Amino acid sequence: MGSGKSKVTITDVARAAGVSSSAVSYALNGKPGVSEQTRKKVLEIADSMGWKPNSAAKALSVAHTHTIGVVLNASSTLLGVEPYFMELFSSVGVELEKEDYSLLLRFAHDDDEALRVHRNWIAAGSVDAVMIFNVEIGDRRVELYRQHPEVPALVFSDASVSGGLTTISSNDADGTRQIVKYLHDLGHTHIARVAGPERFGHTYLRDRVFSEETAKYGMRYDCLHADYTPQEGRDCTKRLLTLPQTPTAIVYDNDVMTIEGLHVASAKGINVPEDLSLISWDDSYLCTVTEPRLTALARNIPALGGQVVSMLYALIDGESVANQFEPGYRLITRESTAAPRAE
Amino acid sequence: MGSGKSKVTITDVARAAGVSSSAVSYALNGKPGVSEQTRKKVLEIADSMGWKPNSAAKALSVAHTHTIGVVLNASSTLLGVEPYFMELFSSVGVELEKEDYSLLLRFAHDDDEALRVHRNWIAAGSVDAVMIFNVEIGDRRVELYRQHPEVPALVFSDASVSGGLTTISSNDADGTRQIVKYLHDLGHTHIARVAGPERFGHTYLRDRVFSEETAKYGMRYDCLHADYTPQEGRDCTKRLLTLPQTPTAIVYDNDVMTIEGLHVASAKGINVPEDLSLISWDDSYLCTVTEPRLTALARNIPALGGQVVSMLYALIDGESVANQFEPGYRLITRESTAAPRAE
Repeated sequence: MGSGKSKVTITDVARAAGVSSSAVSYALNGKPGVSEQTRKKVLEIADSMGWKPNSAAKALSVAHTHTIGVVLNASSTLLGVEPYFMELFSSVGVELEKEDYSLLLRFAHDDDEALRVHRNWIAAGSVDAVMIFNVEIGDRRVELYRQHPEVPALVFSDASVSGGLTTISSNDADGTRQIVKYLHDLGHTHIARVAGPERFGHTYLRDRVFSEETAKYGMRYDCLHADYTPQEGRDCTKRLLTLPQTPTAIVYDNDVMTIEGLHVASAKGINVPEDLSLISWDDSYLCTVTEPRLTALARNIPALGGQVVSMLYALIDGESVANQFEPGYRLITRESTAAPRAE
Repeated sequence: MGSGKSKVTITDVARAAGVSSSAVSYALNGKPGVSEQTRKKVLEIADSMGWKPNSAAKALSVAHTHTIGVVLNASSTLLGVEPYFMELFSSVGVELEKEDYSLLLRFAHDDDEALRVHRNWIAAGSVDAVMIFNVEIGDRRVELYRQHPEVPALVFSDASVSGGLTTISSNDADGTRQIVKYLHDLGHTHIARVAGPERFGHTYLRDRVFSEETAKYGMRYDCLHADYTPQEGRDCTKRLLTLPQTPTAIVYDNDVMTIEGLHVASAKGINVPEDLSLISWDDSYLCTVTEPRLTALARNIPALGGQVVSMLYALIDGESVANQFEPGYRLITRESTAAPRAE
């Protein structure tokens, strides 16, 4: 942790904001006593001036929260359906238990709200470190934690969008290559993909590598973007299957959309895998309960939990931590993929 | 909140335990500086003496944690598979967001560890209230929170096992009656059940009502107990299907075990629902992705979230809160149930 004293004081912030020092204190510590408008103004000014909590007080408080913060702003519906976060939290939580750490879980209905929670956590010293998911290009959370190195952030994204914050990246380029090569080797020449939201860094990366790899093999490639929900998984599949030339394989960016794709195909009388191969990015229990069971790109989430927690502890101890990759992806082939029917 | 000052001081506890006041302080506040043995002894003695944190300091800290605590000691594997907790946390979390509250989530590998976390939370004033799940008969967590009314606990169980703590109960008796009547009306005369662990209060309640209701209709009824995991769901189904007289319907206490039951039946060439009807207690996305889709007893989890959070806030405000029932169960009939084949 840095030993230098912060140069910007609460008095400086109060002067710049034109409010009392106690109002600044209330605002920075997330306490009642100031209007939301004042709080917002104070936080912005404090941020822009590079205000940081006193490092001694900070170190004291950091030693005591024993919590890792996560703000989730995905829709609650999706969180109940898609197993990834609960699997990850369980795996991380079991590792955290060994050192008496907890997860502080906060829901936020939009990005502004999420940012406000992060600001309050930083000001109040509520957490020892945070985990940041679904990073967008130019993400404001990344900017915020760059300004506040006293609260370490572990970013789940490609290093190219983390602004220098420590990252743990899934090797999406490698995962993409495994999928495209597998489909090419089966004989597919026209594949499609139902991707996640375009604004996410990992979607961007997968988009780019899918384009490159399919081009390399001379395959035709269509891509639609969705929001990971069952509804958009269905809608995109319907659009892909009404194209004049339909693909012989579809890759989905999560398990839930793949399952919905299977249902759409089934309703249209399209046989999986004889007429259409389906692949889920992210394996889960869901992929094993359908008929046919789904070929999926699997992460090793239990191993990931241990790796994540080691990185978090090192960051909390003020160590310099290199960006790391998750354990490698592994393509698990089940009954939803096969060679395309000969024309 | 109570206004009277606690009568038992740290000095009293120190005298009774035969240790220094600072050792008591360390122990009660979950800080290092005392051995685990001493901590345990101090906590037990403080508990038995009815020690409570100073109420003014407590009120101050309560006003500031803005967190609801949950200690989970189910296996991490199951948490990643069974959607119930993530659905509930999402639904509760979205309601909590409106008042700037977070969930403090702590994993614990066994009951002793879970109890230690709860004691530390109480001593340190870490949370404004707790939610308690999977209550056992004679549960030590219930005893602990009875001794510490300064941290309100909302217990998810039947009121008969909550020791007077405020409960929110699923109406398991009514759910059981709906299932048994439905199967009886279809013509089933021999049904079985793969239940949850016998030590849980809600399992006990369901066991009793299933026995009563099947007896009322003159149905034969077999019951095996499992731990909610896929493995035990499979094992119990295999045992039930190798009985000399096999049941014509099986009811499972969660969705995951039902799906495994479906797979076992399928592997044995038993047709669902023609030869065997299956019902899942707890509906979820999982119940809609199998072939055939599963008849299930559904809770209204989004509505439950709002109800839970209202009760928590009232408890935190020191109000007296009556025990409540969750929104009622609703049996959703899908393709996994039918009349039994005529002999």
